[in-house]
Amino acid sequence: MAKRDSKNAAGKGARKTLPCTGAAAADDTVITALDLPAQKLSPEMAAYFAKCEEKLGFVPNVLKAYAFDTAKLAAFVAMYNDLMLAPSGLSKLEREMIAVAVSAHNRCYYCLVAHGAAVRTLSGDPPLGELMAMNYRAARLSARQRAMLDFAVKLTAEPWRIEDEDRAALRRAGFSDRDIWDIAAVAGFFNMSNRVASATDMRPNSVYHAQAR
Amino acid sequence: MAKRDSKNAAGKGARKTLPCTGAAAADDTVITALDLPAQKLSPEMAAYFAKCEEKLGFVPNVLKAYAFDTAKLAAFVAMYNDLMLAPSGLSKLEREMIAVAVSAHNRCYYCLVAHGAAVRTLSGDPPLGELMAMNYRAARLSARQRAMLDFAVKLTAEPWRIEDEDRAALRRAGFSDRDIWDIAAVAGFFNMSNRVASATDMRPNSVYHAQAR
Amino acid sequence: MAKRDSKNAAGKGARKTLPCTGAAAADDTVITALDLPAQKLSPEMAAYFAKCEEKLGFVPNVLKAYAFDTAKLAAFVAMYNDLMLAPSGLSKLEREMIAVAVSAHNRCYYCLVAHGAAVRTLSGDPPLGELMAMNYRAARLSARQRAMLDFAVKLTAEPWRIEDEDRAALRRAGFSDRDIWDIAAVAGFFNMSNRVASATDMRPNSVYHAQAR
Amino acid sequence: MAKRDSKNAAGKGARKTLPCTGAAAADDTVITALDLPAQKLSPEMAAYFAKCEEKLGFVPNVLKAYAFDTAKLAAFVAMYNDLMLAPSGLSKLEREMIAVAVSAHNRCYYCLVAHGAAVRTLSGDPPLGELMAMNYRAARLSARQRAMLDFAVKLTAEPWRIEDEDRAALRRAGFSDRDIWDIAAVAGFFNMSNRVASATDMRPNSVYHAQAR
Amino acid sequence: MAKRDSKNAAGKGARKTLPCTGAAAADDTVITALDLPAQKLSPEMAAYFAKCEEKLGFVPNVLKAYAFDTAKLAAFVAMYNDLMLAPSGLSKLEREMIAVAVSAHNRCYYCLVAHGAAVRTLSGDPPLGELMAMNYRAARLSARQRAMLDFAVKLTAEPWRIEDEDRAALRRAGFSDRDIWDIAAVAGFFNMSNRVASATDMRPNSVYHAQAR
Amino acid sequence: MAKRDSKNAAGKGARKTLPCTGAAAADDTVITALDLPAQKLSPEMAAYFAKCEEKLGFVPNVLKAYAFDTAKLAAFVAMYNDLMLAPSGLSKLEREMIAVAVSAHNRCYYCLVAHGAAVRTLSGDPPLGELMAMNYRAARLSARQRAMLDFAVKLTAEPWRIEDEDRAALRRAGFSDRDIWDIAAVAGFFNMSNRVASATDMRPNSVYHAQAR
Repeated sequence: MAKRDSKNAAGKGARKTLPCTGAAAADDTVITALDLPAQKLSPEMAAYFAKCEEKLGFVPNVLKAYAFDTAKLAAFVAMYNDLMLAPSGLSKLEREMIAVAVSAHNRCYYCLVAHGAAVRTLSGDPPLGELMAMNYRAARLSARQRAMLDFAVKLTAEPWRIEDEDRAALRRAGFSDRDIWDIAAVAGFFNMSNRVASATDMRPNSVYHAQAR
Repeated sequence: MAKRDSKNAAGKGARKTLPCTGAAAADDTVITALDLPAQKLSPEMAAYFAKCEEKLGFVPNVLKAYAFDTAKLAAFVAMYNDLMLAPSGLSKLEREMIAVAVSAHNRCYYCLVAHGAAVRTLSGDPPLGELMAMNYRAARLSARQRAMLDFAVKLTAEPWRIEDEDRAALRRAGFSDRDIWDIAAVAGFFNMSNRVASATDMRPNSVYHAQAR
Repeated sequence: MAKRDSKNAAGKGARKTLPCTGAAAADDTVITALDLPAQKLSPEMAAYFAKCEEKLGFVPNVLKAYAFDTAKLAAFVAMYNDLMLAPSGLSKLEREMIAVAVSAHNRCYYCLVAHGAAVRTLSGDPPLGELMAMNYRAARLSARQRAMLDFAVKLTAEPWRIEDEDRAALRRAGFSDRDIWDIAAVAGFFNMSNRVASATDMRPNSVYHAQAR
Repeated sequence: MAKRDSKNAAGKGARKTLPCTGAAAADDTVITALDLPAQKLSPEMAAYFAKCEEKLGFVPNVLKAYAFDTAKLAAFVAMYNDLMLAPSGLSKLEREMIAVAVSAHNRCYYCLVAHGAAVRTLSGDPPLGELMAMNYRAARLSARQRAMLDFAVKLTAEPWRIEDEDRAALRRAGFSDRDIWDIAAVAGFFNMSNRVASATDMRPNSVYHAQAR
Repeated sequence: MAKRDSKNAAGKGARKTLPCTGAAAADDTVITALDLPAQKLSPEMAAYFAKCEEKLGFVPNVLKAYAFDTAKLAAFVAMYNDLMLAPSGLSKLEREMIAVAVSAHNRCYYCLVAHGAAVRTLSGDPPLGELMAMNYRAARLSARQRAMLDFAVKLTAEPWRIEDEDRAALRRAGFSDRDIWDIAAVAGFFNMSNRVASATDMRPNSVYHAQAR
Repeated sequence: MAKRDSKNAAGKGARKTLPCTGAAAADDTVITALDLPAQKLSPEMAAYFAKCEEKLGFVPNVLKAYAFDTAKLAAFVAMYNDLMLAPSGLSKLEREMIAVAVSAHNRCYYCLVAHGAAVRTLSGDPPLGELMAMNYRAARLSARQRAMLDFAVKLTAEPWRIEDEDRAALRRAGFSDRDIWDIAAVAGFFNMSNRVASATDMRPNSVYHAQAR
């Protein structure tokens, strides 16, 4: 939908935001650099967008970007919600910390803005969001969280170097094999999303910038 | 399922393979380094596995690796099939070429073996699979395919450097905005899958090695 | 002064800040990982600290970190003020943009927090600060500012590759030889400061986090 | 000889190969991107080529590429045969494993194809050749072979970082000082050959692709 | 001053040098690639230049390069002299060794020539200067000096990876917290100077080349 | 021979050198970190060593390092002499410039010292040797020599990225196909030698340091 149909899509959320000028002026209306008009949403996806509006006050731009093809949107939403919201040995905050540390390695503007806000909100600790986005090594983390992020960032930077010793380090930090899967799957997912966002110059909703500062 | 239940899962496909010794001896039975016993598959996923057996003669190990959680398996299958098999301006072979060139950058054993076989099979040109896995720059490609792979590999290596000029190069090579999305989405997907595979030491079905040589 | 004397030094500024908990809880009291007690400031430096308190409401932690040695503090302040505040063909905002883009390459927590706040404040454009800290290539910049940051970041990443053509690109973007010096000098200065900050685990004043959001 | 004279040179080997179409169609006739017609071979080199035909069924293209200058060809053959075939504490398979792991780091199409085939043939273990070419870290190797390849690949990637501790690790794995020389010399040789091949776009004989699969 | 006024500035030193032809022919007259005519020096800076002439026989070109602006020159001289000449737990030779090892990582021609000469002169050991410029890891250093250079070069290459363990290694090697500051500050300073020199194509006085060989 | 037999081998050359203390004190007696006693030289190699003594005043340590095995020594000498001394479109100085620029990328102490001296001697231009060893991009080179070194260093750093356009750039600079081979072969050879030297901690004869300064 990107360029065409953004007035509608951005509608309700925009009301809650201060008027945005400057660097992000158009970010709520021109969502990507590709001209892919939104398809009519399936009933499920329309309901999901409505739920976003209700709970967040806006539809995240990544969803609008996928809205040119309902099948792709549905697949993305299903995978995202399973990874980030379904039961896991990792807390939702921990999964968002992985998202931001991975996105920092990949210098992905969209994901750093959107998921940095999530870390600030879920943690109630605004500097933690900054630390994840700037250099997670400078954060005062528990040994568990440090091991988790070291694995996720090594997996991002040099996946070919992950070996048994890396998995053993996670186990020593208290993670189960299922937890290791989840760390890998979340890190992997953002390695995908970072690249879709960078490839399309995806812009984050401007409302994120001031959240939970 | 990985370690426990592999006898069943690998069953039918194994019959078609020569007995495998040496480097890959256990690859058909111990699929990942994580101990995640297979869940009972949902009827949809059971049907999908049956279809793999019927069409391929085996269930790809990546599916068995995900079988510890039906929701994750279903989300993976939905996204994979949409990206690799649904209608697109990119041919199935082109999508597999992206898969292998990305996996070569990430040096992912599982994906290079499985998708290298796919390039050989779909192209009927065994050396093309080797070229994608070894150095796509050495292949004699059309300008279109070269531009496609240059974008996919740059997006893999340095996603933060993708800019308007990179998208313009794709458009000059004849790609539509929808094609650009698909190139990005396939490249992104294998940046995810490569990392899940490397994080878990996923092993490719040994049957792939001799396919279409 | 770092560990010992921080109660005094952080005093006045702290009043303007919300109580900080979480990731940055101690950042206003334990400024570096080195135990270097503050020396008695020279009258000039004492006056300078008083001026910081008056104008900013706090003394930036980098100054407190240097306060263990008045000569080093004075040399740092003299160079900093000349580079960032003296007349130049570069605006103060442009110099801060260089500071942040360089610090982003070097992933320096202190400088990203402190100078990210400066970009937000000087520009009145909060997302611009985020863009400089996350990926300056994603910002919508003038050709002049883009050329300036491309030079500064290349000089940071691969100084050995700067050649006549790089200087020519700056001249084509309208910069004078004196401007080129200033771009180089500011980029160079933050390559120094980033390393002093990272070497000592310097922590930014917590007050920066919420400024100009 | 490259472009001109390939019909003769490729002669006998070609009979044993299926007609090659697609990616490697011309690889047996246009061996490099340089136009360097073959010189008349010295009697020693002519005999050596004849021996290749007899034993392998073809003359490896690298030899044909050097045939424009008999002195260069003879020097190359002398060094190659000493390193790869003369008595050594390293088995011939181990030397080929080093060749492929080094060539994988350097992404050299010629050497990966030719020496990958050698690993498959000497080991009787086709996946071992793939593992060396794709990511040797994913192979199930003995501690000895892993130490050998770790040294060879570090020496390839960052020769300036090799120090006493690296040699000590080889000694702990059971290697003598002479073995260490041989590991270094083989790794060094392929760092040379990879570059001559890449610089000239050298193409591997198509017969290699299907060998020992 | 660079291009214009070099006859004067280079004057006295030039008498002591052999006529320089070849690669460095113009290095004593065209000091940088920027056209920044020298300002009239302040009395303090004029006295400092005179002292250089008296003690060294020439004014180092870096000072002439800064002479277009007395304030910048004075700030540079103040910081340089404090770091390299003021009392410190690091000897002057050790500080010069850091200067050269950092400049080697950054491949800075000016600093390698000028400070390589300083290492040769201060140590009375010409090969030590070469080792610092070529690969400090190949030098036979004390554990203390090796730890010092490892920290300085890691801080240069990957400042974001410096953590408590790196500081602990320095403490184990006998360095105080003040020494750690000094190592960081000298390494930081040359990361600045290397970049100013590379950005401006600064040329070293030709007299350095033959010093203390 | 390395450790054992160095007194003899270093004999004559040592007379011309000042006594060496400090960093390189033992470099003329302990040539590598491996204990590989010299074999009795073949008559040809003995004659070659004698010729070195006569013409250079010493036997280069690399030859002594290879002397543990006459076949390896002879193969090395044959290839070296063909590449560096036989007729070529590249002058001997140009071949030495490639040797040093490649060795600078690989930070090889042995080769930088030995071949840096060769560049100084052959060119009669001492700073040219320094420029090749420090950053060839800072040298004032002809377009021909710059193109030659750009190719050689790219081939060293990223051989997988060499393509037709790189060869075309050499042709535009006036190089023939045979010249391109020679550039590649010399660059390749030093990529081998750098690694053998680094793997064995090979030390350069101390006499090189003061040559042609």
